[in-house]
Amino acid sequence: MPRTRVHNLNVSLDGYAAGDHVSFDHPIGDAGQLFEQFDGRVIHGVDKVQEPITVDRALTSMWSQGIGAEIMGRRKFGPQTGEWPDDGWQGWWGDEPPFQTPVFVMTHYEHPPIEFANGTSFHFVSGSPKEVLRLAQGAADGRDVRLGGGPTTVRQFLQADLVDFMHLVIVPVVLGHGVALWDGLGDLRGRFVVESVATPSGLTHQFFNRVATL
Amino acid sequence: MPRTRVHNLNVSLDGYAAGDHVSFDHPIGDAGQLFEQFDGRVIHGVDKVQEPITVDRALTSMWSQGIGAEIMGRRKFGPQTGEWPDDGWQGWWGDEPPFQTPVFVMTHYEHPPIEFANGTSFHFVSGSPKEVLRLAQGAADGRDVRLGGGPTTVRQFLQADLVDFMHLVIVPVVLGHGVALWDGLGDLRGRFVVESVATPSGLTHQFFNRVATL
Repeated sequence: MPRTRVHNLNVSLDGYAAGDHVSFDHPIGDAGQLFEQFDGRVIHGVDKVQEPITVDRALTSMWSQGIGAEIMGRRKFGPQTGEWPDDGWQGWWGDEPPFQTPVFVMTHYEHPPIEFANGTSFHFVSGSPKEVLRLAQGAADGRDVRLGGGPTTVRQFLQADLVDFMHLVIVPVVLGHGVALWDGLGDLRGRFVVESVATPSGLTHQFFNRVATL
Repeated sequence: MPRTRVHNLNVSLDGYAAGDHVSFDHPIGDAGQLFEQFDGRVIHGVDKVQEPITVDRALTSMWSQGIGAEIMGRRKFGPQTGEWPDDGWQGWWGDEPPFQTPVFVMTHYEHPPIEFANGTSFHFVSGSPKEVLRLAQGAADGRDVRLGGGPTTVRQFLQADLVDFMHLVIVPVVLGHGVALWDGLGDLRGRFVVESVATPSGLTHQFFNRVATL
């Protein structure tokens, strides 16, 4: 069975995984501290940088392995709210979005799909997490689906018990405010087996594997 | 610059990385304890198993990332010694060797190349580590070269200062005898930056990154 996987979700010590204020100029809002150590160049493999292969980079490199589609919340695609403006926006990533698969953007507002030459395509869909997951699984052609965030989207899928694997990176900073990952998730205990490893950088990687349903 | 990388080299607490006695019936000699926790199914990605994605499996999955060729010692290919017998031996791995790249087997004895449909080909070469590395780099087409072991081969390349990255897995067992990795390597200090992480399984992963030459 294909999995639904979360990768490289950075979380502050006080449980925030994104900033409050996202704008065109500030795509990650005021949560920049969460990403200071994140090296996105290795999401397609540790060979993509000349720098040392650190444990953090090694673990980050799982992101693309065996992934056939991504699901993301609307705010990961852009800062707009309400009806989509006719502004030519194609996401934060320029001409070569890193996904290289179909991406399903969850939104209540209609938007035509966008296709890129590198295999990335954005599809704008509404529906419950379960319904959107079915669409993504259909497009993933037997491979796993990555749940790309942000935290509000991950939280919805956790509440619906649709997450098979989740890789969190606990960043030793306190944000004080932002989008909380854990709101309403007091029942997680027992649903996942958790492994934690601390790395020399000060990060802690946590692997949540869902307990197999009996 | 392409790297020369060692991955998933299991080492006992007393520094042995292979058994003494390799035969057709016992490909890893009497060092089976070293491999009890090794899950080779994930060398091409953590999506290759249905089991939980553990930290050990995640780190094992670097093995194939960006690799264009492998170098191995003769004993990793087979237990024969001296002149190659005409026995039809094609390595330990059956019809689908996991390498899927050219593989350079270091031997003083001539042997015709062997090609498999899955992209793996074995080439039997003699020469110094540096000369064999040049051959492998030529075949790797800009990608990294994996130094596949065993420990005698890794030791030779370490002594020649040709290893850029080395991922060791320290297994909490004592073998008492076998092929020692560290013989003659008392000068490693200062040549590598080392990171260590312990995982919940009891293994310790060590990442050696060579200090850039000035």
